[in-house]
Amino acid sequence: MKAFAISSSLLALKSLNFNHTRNRISNNPFLFSNKTLFFRQIHSSPSPIMAASSINSELARSPPAIPLPTPPLTNFKIGLCQLSVTSDKDKNIAHARTAIQDAAAKGAKLILLPEIWNSPYSNDSFPVYAEDIDAGGDASPSTAMLSELSSLLKITIVGGSIPERSGDRLYNTCCVFGTDGKLKAKHRKIHLFDIDIPGKITFIESLTLTAGDTPTIVDTEVGRIGIGICYDIRFPELAMIYAARGAHLLCYPGAFNMTTGPLHWELLQRARATDNQLYVATCSPARDTTGGYVAWGHSTLVGPFGEVLATTEHEETTIIAEIDYSILEQRRTNLPVTKQRRGDLYQLVDLQRLNSN
Amino acid sequence: MKAFAISSSLLALKSLNFNHTRNRISNNPFLFSNKTLFFRQIHSSPSPIMAASSINSELARSPPAIPLPTPPLTNFKIGLCQLSVTSDKDKNIAHARTAIQDAAAKGAKLILLPEIWNSPYSNDSFPVYAEDIDAGGDASPSTAMLSELSSLLKITIVGGSIPERSGDRLYNTCCVFGTDGKLKAKHRKIHLFDIDIPGKITFIESLTLTAGDTPTIVDTEVGRIGIGICYDIRFPELAMIYAARGAHLLCYPGAFNMTTGPLHWELLQRARATDNQLYVATCSPARDTTGGYVAWGHSTLVGPFGEVLATTEHEETTIIAEIDYSILEQRRTNLPVTKQRRGDLYQLVDLQRLNSN
Repeated sequence: MKAFAISSSLLALKSLNFNHTRNRISNNPFLFSNKTLFFRQIHSSPSPIMAASSINSELARSPPAIPLPTPPLTNFKIGLCQLSVTSDKDKNIAHARTAIQDAAAKGAKLILLPEIWNSPYSNDSFPVYAEDIDAGGDASPSTAMLSELSSLLKITIVGGSIPERSGDRLYNTCCVFGTDGKLKAKHRKIHLFDIDIPGKITFIESLTLTAGDTPTIVDTEVGRIGIGICYDIRFPELAMIYAARGAHLLCYPGAFNMTTGPLHWELLQRARATDNQLYVATCSPARDTTGGYVAWGHSTLVGPFGEVLATTEHEETTIIAEIDYSILEQRRTNLPVTKQRRGDLYQLVDLQRLNSN
Repeated sequence: MKAFAISSSLLALKSLNFNHTRNRISNNPFLFSNKTLFFRQIHSSPSPIMAASSINSELARSPPAIPLPTPPLTNFKIGLCQLSVTSDKDKNIAHARTAIQDAAAKGAKLILLPEIWNSPYSNDSFPVYAEDIDAGGDASPSTAMLSELSSLLKITIVGGSIPERSGDRLYNTCCVFGTDGKLKAKHRKIHLFDIDIPGKITFIESLTLTAGDTPTIVDTEVGRIGIGICYDIRFPELAMIYAARGAHLLCYPGAFNMTTGPLHWELLQRARATDNQLYVATCSPARDTTGGYVAWGHSTLVGPFGEVLATTEHEETTIIAEIDYSILEQRRTNLPVTKQRRGDLYQLVDLQRLNSN
């Protein structure tokens, strides 16, 4: 019956006015959690301050947003490995291994790989290259390598994505490994890439893949990270949910193409970072113009003001860049949008978090 | 008790599975409104198509999104009048009159003015230049001019904004006039511009202004238009609500500054247009480097793929550009994000529309 929490908060909102007694308002946990807000509403005469406090910004997210946690590492280097991908899986794995080792040698504590880095990006290839991640070991040589390296090098790896086989279904799946080599989270792409721009790009991922059924946010040595895969970035709601769950960083492995890449790749990263005042990192495969699907490249790190901190063109390369979470609070003080949202007018509901509370 | 609609839709969502009978599902108006969806869920075995339909995209908006209406004019010219603003209100009004007449002479059927075009942009000026829009006539010479011209020239005017006095309160208010000269809508800026970037830009609008308490969307000869003023554009929820209410176009009069302008002005416009697959038009005052608040300028028209269709630098000018709503459906077919949203994972609630249903 958790769903009822919404309606009770809405009812409280509808009935909120300045004639309430303290006791009556304090029955509502959404309002009572902000005592400053409460006292302003009760004791102020009509004024700009009262007008500002009547907006109930915390109700703009349901459940209310979680403050940023303090991560073990606040300031660190991230490596974005924009890998060339071939049709030889063993070669792809060996190649990724070398890139990760090189990035770690340059000081990266977090390494992000591209979407579908162990296989060509095609519906024909997904079933052939798919691995049983849950079975592990020989059934998933790609993730076994990631696990081994993360432990050996004491780094966090957001392992791009690979085709995953689970029973009779296939997913586009990102695995996150902690510094102990353990699988900390597994994100199955939740918005499948089904688009049709005639004469430009048509791709129907849902012909072979099944969509995942959950957002994925994970606490690591290098912060609370929300994961999306490629097309997931088109849905602002997912990034907003992650921000409300306290994310410092969103990682989107992604293989935009030669049509949507120049149109939207950087735009969407900068928008998610700016609107949610957090870091966004993306990692694409390098471009192979002889392949069936030609990736845009342009892996990028974006800061919480939407500023491009590091980026590249389409060739194979590894970006090493600095992340400093201490500026998140500063940006949120500069532009206090989280306190200015109109919880009296709109509310974004995170259904999974609501139902698990 | 309209608030209860959310909880019943959520409960329906939680209980939805493929063992339901048709009757049971059809009791839920959210699901029954899409019969194709319904039949796929009932009659398909597990398959990519079923996986796609189980996402309940229509539940991602509460109330469910309204389809695009058919506007009287589908293809027309818009004029964005990037006006110089002085401390002489009469002169500002005469100047705006001339710009509107010129834009109409060039064929513009919709004209957009800047934020605070009849007054300097400062907390000191707002009380002095404010007009009683509801009283009209001599009490509001700025809007009287807009009304007169819209009727005379048979155009729609989204009248930027002016400081409005209503009782003992001041608002930052945009008036929309139809081709008959009547005031069709009045938007009071709902997110006040209170920011503090030390050494760059600090402004506290709430020292003098009160925030409006309602989103504003209006049917005109030139489409269904959602209105935001400047800082309103920072809140993606407002644009998402307007899109769900069937907006073709969002108009944001806005005076970004020399810090936030280069950082975010174009980015936010392109993001709102791309995420919501509609047109976005903005209009800034021209830059006056001798003024107390220096506007960024760069009035812009953005298309539904986030493409900048027309823009300018910071000098006084009028942009005349073409809008063609017929491409909205095309873009939404190319990238069918509205049907791909995960209504099983997130839901954006438009509280006002929910409560008025």
